[in-house]
Amino acid sequence: VYYAEKRILSALPKMIDKASESELKQGFETHFRETEHQVDRLDDVFQKLGVESKSVSCPAIDGIIEEAEDIAGDVSDKNVLDAALIAAAQAVEHYEIARYGTLIAWAKQLGYNDSANILAETLAEEKQTNQKLTNLAEKRINLQAAE
Amino acid sequence: VYYAEKRILSALPKMIDKASESELKQGFETHFRETEHQVDRLDDVFQKLGVESKSVSCPAIDGIIEEAEDIAGDVSDKNVLDAALIAAAQAVEHYEIARYGTLIAWAKQLGYNDSANILAETLAEEKQTNQKLTNLAEKRINLQAAE
Repeated sequence: VYYAEKRILSALPKMIDKASESELKQGFETHFRETEHQVDRLDDVFQKLGVESKSVSCPAIDGIIEEAEDIAGDVSDKNVLDAALIAAAQAVEHYEIARYGTLIAWAKQLGYNDSANILAETLAEEKQTNQKLTNLAEKRINLQAAE
Repeated sequence: VYYAEKRILSALPKMIDKASESELKQGFETHFRETEHQVDRLDDVFQKLGVESKSVSCPAIDGIIEEAEDIAGDVSDKNVLDAALIAAAQAVEHYEIARYGTLIAWAKQLGYNDSANILAETLAEEKQTNQKLTNLAEKRINLQAAE
């Protein structure tokens, strides 16, 4: 996830740039700042465990982001592009929800409760971001895209 | 998702083979049969929409499965391998949950309610599979892996 969070940080500015709808653009901006903080949390966990923080290449997030960029590149209508950006962002969020869920379960099992609690803050943010994207899609973006 | 489901069908036999714990192995076997049925549902949707079913390469699922195989290849302890297989399978499930969630929202928005209902059956199965994997991990597999 350390690599994944950094990869997401490098991808988000392009998504902010491509988003048209103001609430979506702001949502991505907020999530960029959250993601910076999530990297800090991972640094904290590495430190707590006395392990040097290190990125290990992660083909899953590379693939998810490559797919997001492929799809966004295919779309010219700005409302449809917003709907596609939400879909892409939700694939990223779900990947993170899966990974943090596993890491928290493993940390608890191994007795690293402090680390589990830190990671749980990030998991809660990812779930909230995903829910906000669903709400935004259902409330407005998908409607505009379908017009 | 059509490509993704077929990619998952081709990956599951290896996961069944690698799993040691009987409930996990059976769970993967059940999910293999479910996945075959999910492909049939997608064929139904393509047919309803009068569109030829066609796989479009999907770097996200390729990356998720490549990562699963990388991780599984690194593990020798069979209990730890079971825990890693669950983590890998949950990343796959979450990817599908994200994609089917989007497809259902888009189908409804476009008035394809029959297709939305068919896809919702699959989404419910994916969520249930994910929940079963969480239960199995927390009930037994993570404990055995940590010993």
